[in-house]
Amino acid sequence: MKFRRSERLVDMTNYLLEHPGRLVSLTYFAERYSSAKSSISEDLTIIKETFESRGIGTLKTVPGAAGGVRFIVSIQRDEALSFIDEMCGIISSPERLLPGGYLYMTDILGQPEIVNKVGRIIAAAYADKKVDLIMTMATKGIPLAYAVANHLNVPVVIVRRDNKVTEGSTVSINYVSGSSKRIQTMVLSKRSLAEGSNVLIVDDFMKAGGTVNGMVSLLEEFHATVAGIAVLVESENTEERLIEQYLSLIKLSDVDEKDKKINVSRGNYFTKTS
Amino acid sequence: MKFRRSERLVDMTNYLLEHPGRLVSLTYFAERYSSAKSSISEDLTIIKETFESRGIGTLKTVPGAAGGVRFIVSIQRDEALSFIDEMCGIISSPERLLPGGYLYMTDILGQPEIVNKVGRIIAAAYADKKVDLIMTMATKGIPLAYAVANHLNVPVVIVRRDNKVTEGSTVSINYVSGSSKRIQTMVLSKRSLAEGSNVLIVDDFMKAGGTVNGMVSLLEEFHATVAGIAVLVESENTEERLIEQYLSLIKLSDVDEKDKKINVSRGNYFTKTS
Repeated sequence: MKFRRSERLVDMTNYLLEHPGRLVSLTYFAERYSSAKSSISEDLTIIKETFESRGIGTLKTVPGAAGGVRFIVSIQRDEALSFIDEMCGIISSPERLLPGGYLYMTDILGQPEIVNKVGRIIAAAYADKKVDLIMTMATKGIPLAYAVANHLNVPVVIVRRDNKVTEGSTVSINYVSGSSKRIQTMVLSKRSLAEGSNVLIVDDFMKAGGTVNGMVSLLEEFHATVAGIAVLVESENTEERLIEQYLSLIKLSDVDEKDKKINVSRGNYFTKTS
Repeated sequence: MKFRRSERLVDMTNYLLEHPGRLVSLTYFAERYSSAKSSISEDLTIIKETFESRGIGTLKTVPGAAGGVRFIVSIQRDEALSFIDEMCGIISSPERLLPGGYLYMTDILGQPEIVNKVGRIIAAAYADKKVDLIMTMATKGIPLAYAVANHLNVPVVIVRRDNKVTEGSTVSINYVSGSSKRIQTMVLSKRSLAEGSNVLIVDDFMKAGGTVNGMVSLLEEFHATVAGIAVLVESENTEERLIEQYLSLIKLSDVDEKDKKINVSRGNYFTKTS
């Protein structure tokens, strides 16, 4: 059965979006649609141009016999900016302020469209870097970590506070929470991380950075490398921050629990990635 | 700026896939591409036919002034079958067997492509039912719950075992774990569930069904309705199961911890949905 160009364009778009970061050979598409490679090549040019002009991403071509195309996610600066400004507006509601300077974000992190957009914005910043996997801390960071992983097509490992029977043998470390100064434990399954992996740490919220710092220490235990640190919200702290190099989409400052006042602004994403 | 059909097809496909379940008006697309509604209509026919012939899903048209199209996810029986059979093969490795008859699945649930496919298979079974939100239990069920939610475009609520400060006020219930017979607690934020919601419960693993049963009781507390129960793996138990109506993709039976033997087969998905 032969396919018309219009059908190929629809199906190829779906296929490429479903397999971000993966190298797909022209032969694969040629066989899938019983079409000549030259037609497939023209299709891919159309898709690439549309992806680029609409800010969806791009197609990177790898030449040669083992070559093909790879979909790389991106986001237009304007789209990211207006989304983050909208999020700042949602988050700045004083009722969201919880004891301890935390923020109620459960409803926001429960919306797949929002989580996916955040994931795409973070993924776009690391799309051309070597990321082997995403690490996060249970439980709040998990949806964001998967949203980033979806766009980069790499696995997720989840660090836990407790030792679950279903994890098999584990490595655990103690760390000091930056804000509460308490000693806490984090646990990671031994099988989940290969030595030398490049790991992108993703979390929903960062105050002093104790949890993120703990994950960095844990990576050292596994002889793995930090490819980057990205958080949705950072809370500006009067005390010294434990982590220096990170990306944030939103920043809280002047958190006044007593008067229920917070100041919400754009994080460092646009200054760090532009 | 006018768009050619080929560009419209690529961008519309991306847009529809990014907003499953959402009604998109023809006017929206007509303005987005500065094109006549008749052209948009033809584009949508091509997309619908391709989506259907490739088993991606379908477009449902809502007529009238407030009408438009809605992308509904689906999966071809053959694609789902071969994926589940492949999963059965991966899962049946004896090293996966953990103490207590549990199964090591952390690596599998860390792969975005696998998690997405499972999510699509479950979502396809509920795509024509009224589902307002997805409920799961922290932490293992979270990635699957979001994968299903992505395809149905509905929010996720996460039930926890502990009371976190960042949740605000909560409702908690005690329940008896079906396999360990221990009394446990589950907690849900008060703000997270509206009365009368239709809730699809999603989890990774079900033994006797105590946890799922607890979630059903919790839904009663919130005066919400169970739209369905879907699990990736069910473990056939000699004891009575607490839950009768559910969908499973994979079934474990004859779990012999001592001899490290398990029997893995297809779950009830294909008998229940066909």
